[in-house]
Amino acid sequence: MVYFQSDYIMGAHPEILRRLGETNFEALAGYGFDKYCDSAKEKIKVACGCPDSDVWLIAGGTQTNAIVISSMLARYEGVISTVTGHIGFHEAGSIEYTGHKVFLLPHHNGKLDADELDGFIKDFYADDNHEHMVFPGMVYVSHPTEYGTLYTKDELTRISDICRKKGIPLFLDGARLGYGLMSRDTDLSLPEIASLCDVFYIGGTKVGALCGEAVVFTKNNTPKHFMTSIKQHGGLLAKGRLLGVQFDTLFTDGLYFEISKNAIDQAEKLKKLLADKGYRFHLDSPTNQQFIIVENGKLEELKKNVAVGFWEKYDDSHTVVRLATSWATTDADIEELAKYL
Amino acid sequence: MVYFQSDYIMGAHPEILRRLGETNFEALAGYGFDKYCDSAKEKIKVACGCPDSDVWLIAGGTQTNAIVISSMLARYEGVISTVTGHIGFHEAGSIEYTGHKVFLLPHHNGKLDADELDGFIKDFYADDNHEHMVFPGMVYVSHPTEYGTLYTKDELTRISDICRKKGIPLFLDGARLGYGLMSRDTDLSLPEIASLCDVFYIGGTKVGALCGEAVVFTKNNTPKHFMTSIKQHGGLLAKGRLLGVQFDTLFTDGLYFEISKNAIDQAEKLKKLLADKGYRFHLDSPTNQQFIIVENGKLEELKKNVAVGFWEKYDDSHTVVRLATSWATTDADIEELAKYL
Amino acid sequence: MVYFQSDYIMGAHPEILRRLGETNFEALAGYGFDKYCDSAKEKIKVACGCPDSDVWLIAGGTQTNAIVISSMLARYEGVISTVTGHIGFHEAGSIEYTGHKVFLLPHHNGKLDADELDGFIKDFYADDNHEHMVFPGMVYVSHPTEYGTLYTKDELTRISDICRKKGIPLFLDGARLGYGLMSRDTDLSLPEIASLCDVFYIGGTKVGALCGEAVVFTKNNTPKHFMTSIKQHGGLLAKGRLLGVQFDTLFTDGLYFEISKNAIDQAEKLKKLLADKGYRFHLDSPTNQQFIIVENGKLEELKKNVAVGFWEKYDDSHTVVRLATSWATTDADIEELAKYL
Amino acid sequence: MVYFQSDYIMGAHPEILRRLGETNFEALAGYGFDKYCDSAKEKIKVACGCPDSDVWLIAGGTQTNAIVISSMLARYEGVISTVTGHIGFHEAGSIEYTGHKVFLLPHHNGKLDADELDGFIKDFYADDNHEHMVFPGMVYVSHPTEYGTLYTKDELTRISDICRKKGIPLFLDGARLGYGLMSRDTDLSLPEIASLCDVFYIGGTKVGALCGEAVVFTKNNTPKHFMTSIKQHGGLLAKGRLLGVQFDTLFTDGLYFEISKNAIDQAEKLKKLLADKGYRFHLDSPTNQQFIIVENGKLEELKKNVAVGFWEKYDDSHTVVRLATSWATTDADIEELAKYL
Repeated sequence: MVYFQSDYIMGAHPEILRRLGETNFEALAGYGFDKYCDSAKEKIKVACGCPDSDVWLIAGGTQTNAIVISSMLARYEGVISTVTGHIGFHEAGSIEYTGHKVFLLPHHNGKLDADELDGFIKDFYADDNHEHMVFPGMVYVSHPTEYGTLYTKDELTRISDICRKKGIPLFLDGARLGYGLMSRDTDLSLPEIASLCDVFYIGGTKVGALCGEAVVFTKNNTPKHFMTSIKQHGGLLAKGRLLGVQFDTLFTDGLYFEISKNAIDQAEKLKKLLADKGYRFHLDSPTNQQFIIVENGKLEELKKNVAVGFWEKYDDSHTVVRLATSWATTDADIEELAKYL
Repeated sequence: MVYFQSDYIMGAHPEILRRLGETNFEALAGYGFDKYCDSAKEKIKVACGCPDSDVWLIAGGTQTNAIVISSMLARYEGVISTVTGHIGFHEAGSIEYTGHKVFLLPHHNGKLDADELDGFIKDFYADDNHEHMVFPGMVYVSHPTEYGTLYTKDELTRISDICRKKGIPLFLDGARLGYGLMSRDTDLSLPEIASLCDVFYIGGTKVGALCGEAVVFTKNNTPKHFMTSIKQHGGLLAKGRLLGVQFDTLFTDGLYFEISKNAIDQAEKLKKLLADKGYRFHLDSPTNQQFIIVENGKLEELKKNVAVGFWEKYDDSHTVVRLATSWATTDADIEELAKYL
Repeated sequence: MVYFQSDYIMGAHPEILRRLGETNFEALAGYGFDKYCDSAKEKIKVACGCPDSDVWLIAGGTQTNAIVISSMLARYEGVISTVTGHIGFHEAGSIEYTGHKVFLLPHHNGKLDADELDGFIKDFYADDNHEHMVFPGMVYVSHPTEYGTLYTKDELTRISDICRKKGIPLFLDGARLGYGLMSRDTDLSLPEIASLCDVFYIGGTKVGALCGEAVVFTKNNTPKHFMTSIKQHGGLLAKGRLLGVQFDTLFTDGLYFEISKNAIDQAEKLKKLLADKGYRFHLDSPTNQQFIIVENGKLEELKKNVAVGFWEKYDDSHTVVRLATSWATTDADIEELAKYL
Repeated sequence: MVYFQSDYIMGAHPEILRRLGETNFEALAGYGFDKYCDSAKEKIKVACGCPDSDVWLIAGGTQTNAIVISSMLARYEGVISTVTGHIGFHEAGSIEYTGHKVFLLPHHNGKLDADELDGFIKDFYADDNHEHMVFPGMVYVSHPTEYGTLYTKDELTRISDICRKKGIPLFLDGARLGYGLMSRDTDLSLPEIASLCDVFYIGGTKVGALCGEAVVFTKNNTPKHFMTSIKQHGGLLAKGRLLGVQFDTLFTDGLYFEISKNAIDQAEKLKKLLADKGYRFHLDSPTNQQFIIVENGKLEELKKNVAVGFWEKYDDSHTVVRLATSWATTDADIEELAKYL
C-alpha cells in the first residue's frame, strides 16, 4: 500500500522533532511569549522581506481563517471568496458562526477573477438598497487554491489593486504556501505576496509541522488586542513553544523552502508518471496536488494498493481523485506507486 | 405624482386604526398575553384550518426570519434558499449574524426547484467530507417570491415531500401571503400551505397593518421557550396589543383576504394598462408586484410623475423597475397612472 | 379592579392615534426616510440642546440596547452594568447573544457607584493577565433605574468623567426618561444628560407611545453604517412612519414632558396615599414606580381589586410589589385605589 | 533561577516525544480517525470505568470549554459557574462569544456550594418573569479549582443530584484533573467523577502533554454531529495523531497518574518548605498549586531568583502569588528553591 491521499498523513519533519526534544526542559513563558516564538517571528519577517510586519502563530487553518476574518471585519461586513474557497464549504460554517456572511463568487480553476470581483463590488455600491445588505469587507483567496492552481503575479496584483482602491483588505490563505512558492510555474515570491496582501498565512500543518500556521499582518494593520481575540476563539495554546519551535525550525536555513521543493520535485515525477500511464488530468496543477479523472471500476481496483483522496463525482462512471505529494514523499513512494498505476 | 414604488407606502387599513383607538384605554397585560393577541391567534388558526397550530406575532419580517430560523436550526446547520431569497441578500446578513449559513441555490423566476433542492441535499450526504460542512437544516421559500411569482400546489408539495423525507423543516416566508392567496392564478389555499409547511408566516406589514407578521407553527413543533428566543432577539414588544389588535382586525370577517383581493384586482388593471401602453414585462407575475423593463431615458421622464421601485439594471440602456399595488390602491391611482405612462 | 402593575398597560396617548390617522394615507418612503421621522429627529435634537447629535428610532428597548451595545463594542469588549441593570437579567441574554459579556457590578438602590466603577476598571488594567480577559468597553446605566431611582448630576458627572478618562462610552438607558426628567427630585436636565452621555435613548413605549425608543448619539459618534446594523438585528421597520409620527407628536409642544409630569403628579399622590395607609416602602423612589413591602396574606386580599407588579420575595411572609403610574393615570384611578388599600 | 510560576513551563513528558518520533512516518488518517486516537480513547474509557462513554480529543482548554458548553446548551440557556471559574473571567469571554451567558455564583475557596446552586435555580423558576431571562442550562465546576482546592465526593454528589433533578448537565473542567486524582486529600476517583458528571475533560496540557484535553461524554450524551461542531469552532486538527499519540502514551501503563503523583509529592515538599520558612498560605490547597501571601518588598527580592505567578493583590503591602509543581518538578528544583526562600 502506498499513500497519496493528502499532504498531512505523516508527522513532522524530523528536525522539528529533534528540536522539540532539545528544548523540552527549558522553562519557558506561556502563550507565545517564549524566545522560540520570538525567533520564529523574526525569521519569518526576514523571509517575507517585510521588517514591519507582525507575525502570529496559531494552531490550525480553520481557526486561523475564523480569527483573522472576524477580527478584521466590521459586524456588518462579509468576506468574498470563490465557491471553491475553503471557508466557503469545508470549514463547517466557521465564518458564519462568527456572524459574517461569505460571498461566493465563481471560480476559474479554483481562482477568483479580478474582473468579476470588481463587478461584484461595483454592483453592490450601485444598488440603491445596499444599506440593507452585507457590505463586502474583505477578499479571501487561497494560494495554491483548493485545486492546486496558482495566481500569477499579474492576477494577484489586479486583485490587490481592486482591494486597495475599495479600501478592503486582501487575505491570502497559504495553507500550502510553500508548495506554491516552490512551484516551477510561479512568478510570485514570498516578499511579493507580502507586499500585495494585507494579511496572509504561511501554512505549517501541511508543510512539515505537526500543527501551526503563521499569520503575517503586512501593513502595520494587526487588529487591536489580537491576542485577546485569539484567546476568545480558543486558539491560544498555553504551550506556545509548540508552535514557536516548529516555525523557528522551518525558517532556519531555508528548511521550509527546501522541503516544499521536495514536494514539487516529487509532484513533477508524479505528473509524468500519470501522463505516461495515460491518466486524464482534471486540470493542470503546478503544485503538489494532482487531480485525475478515473473510471469507477478502475478506481476500485487502484484503491486496493493506493490511498487516494476522493474529490468529487465527475459523471456517473467517473470520479475525480486527488494524489498529493508532500515534504515527506520519497522516490520510493513514487516507484511503488508506479507499480500500481 | 402617483405612488407605485412599493406596497408599504401607506399607513394601516382604517379599521385597524379605529380598533386601536377603541381599545386604547383598556388595561391589558403586556408581552402578548392580552385578549386581542389571544383572539387574533384563534382566528388565524381557524383561517389556516389548523386547530393544533401555534401562532406568534412578531413586529417585522427580517426579525421573524432570523428568530424562526435560528430557533429551529442546530448550530451546525444552515438554511437553504434561492439566490433571490430575501434572507440571502436583503436582510443585511441577519441570518449569518445568528451564526448560520444561508445556502444559495439557483432561482427560476424567484422559485426554488424541487429537483435542484433534492440534488443539493443528496450531494451533501454523498460527500465523504460532509462532516466538515454545514448541514442543510431547513428550506426557506417565499410565496409570493421576490418576483411576485407563486408556487403551484404541485411544486410546493414536491418541496415539502423532500423536506419530510430528509427530516428538515420547510419554512415559507409569507410577507405578501395575502396577495398570493388572492391571486387569480393560484391553486394553493391557506390550509394547504399550513399543511405543506412546518412553519410559515402571514405578513401584516405589507398587507394592511402598520407592522407585524403572524408566525404559524403547524405541526406542534414550536421551538422550546420560543418566547424567550423572541425576547433574546429583541423582538418582544411590551405592548403586544399593538400586534394583537391589528391581526385580530385583519382576521375578523375576512378583512385580510378582502383587502388582499383589492391589490390583485388593481394589479390586474395595472397589468392591462402596462400591456396596452406597450411596456415590456420582465416576467409574468400573478400577484401585486409587476416588473417592467424601461429604457433609461424614458424612465427618467416617467419618474417625474410616477414613483416606481428600482429593481435591477437590465442592460446599459434599460432598467427593471417595480410597480406594486396594495390593499390601499384605488381606481383613482390607476387612472392617474394611466395619464403618465 | 384598578390597574397599577406597570406603565405599559394602556395604548398610546390619544394625540398619537389622532396623528397616525391624519397621516395614514400619505404616501411615504419606507425604513425611516419619511418626513415625520425627519421632523421627530429635529425636534429631539432641539429638546436635547444638542444640534450635532444624531437620532435614530427603534421599535423596542431590548432591541435598542442590543443594537447600540453590539455596534459600539469591539468584539473583545464587554459592557459594565449593575446587577440590577435591565441588560443583566431581564433581556434573556440578548447582549450575550451578540457575543458580548455583561460585567455585573453591585447596585445601590439600582445605581452604579462611580468609585466602584473606577476600581473595577483600574483592577482590570492592573491585572497582569488582562489580555486574557474581556476588556471593559462601555458603561451602561439606566435613568430612572429599575428601582425608579435617579442619578444626581454629581453622580452622573463622576461616572461620565471616568468613562472619558478611560476612553469608553457611557450609554444611558432612558426607557422611562420622561419620568426621570419630570421628577420633583432631579437636578438633571435633558441637555445635561445629552452632554454627559455618549449615547442614550428616550423611551417612548413606557411614556405614551405604542412602541419606540429614540436613540441619541451625542458626540458625532454614530457607529458606521448604523442603519445596516439595525437591519441586521431585525430592528428596521418597513413603515418607519409608525415611529416617526409617534415621536414627532411626543416632541411637539412639549407633549412628552407634559404627560411625563402627569405620571409624577399621580405618583406623588400615590406615595402619599400609601404612606397614609401605613404601607412600608422598599426604598424611596422619586419617579413613577413605587415599591412597597406587603405581607403575603394582605397581598392576596389586595390583588382581588388592584393589579400590582410582583417584584421580588422580601422574606418568607412578605413580598415586594410595584405600583406604577404613567402618562395615562387619572385622579379617578388614584381614588379607586384608595378604596382598596 | 528556579521556575515555579506555573505547571506549563516545560515541554512534554519524554515518553510522549519518543512516541511522536517512533510513529512519525506512519501514514495515518487525518482529523482524529487514526489508530492512536482510537487506542487513546479506549484506554481512557477503561481508566474511567465507563465503557459506554464517548471520548474526544481537543487541542486546548479554552477551546474545549467553548465547544462543549455551546454544543450542549440551547440558545436561550446559560451556564452556571463560580465567580472564580476559568470561563468566568480568564477565557476572554469565549463563552459569551458563542452567544451564551455565564452566571457567576459566589465561590468558597474556588468551589461552588450546592445549596447556593439549588437556591439560584429555584429562585429562577420562582420568578414570574423567568421567561424573560436566560435559562440555567448547565453547571460548570473545575476540579481542582482555580485555587487548587478539591470537591469532596459528598460535595460533588450533591451538585450532581441537583443537576439531575433539574435535568441540566454537570460539566467538570479537569484541566489539572491528574493532580486532583493523585492528591493525598481526595476521596474522588476517576470512575466516580465519570459517574457523577455528564461530561468532563482530562487535562493534558498541564499534565505532561504539549497540548490536548480529552473530553468524556459519560452518559451516551454526545451532542449530535459533535465533530462538525469542533470543526466549526476551528478545533479540529488535521493531524489528529498529535493528540492521539500523546493521550495514548499518557494512558499507557498509568503514566498519567504516575506523573501526576510526582507533582503532588513535590507539592507536599513545597508546602512543608514554605511552612518551615514561615510563609503564610492564602488557603489550604491539597494539589499542585500553592498560594502564599508575601510582603511586596520581600516579593521583589524573591523574584530575583524564583519565578512565581502573580495571583492577586492581597492588600496595599502584600500580594498573593502562586507556586506550582508539575509532572516535571524535580527534587533539585525544590532544593534550589529552598536556598532562595
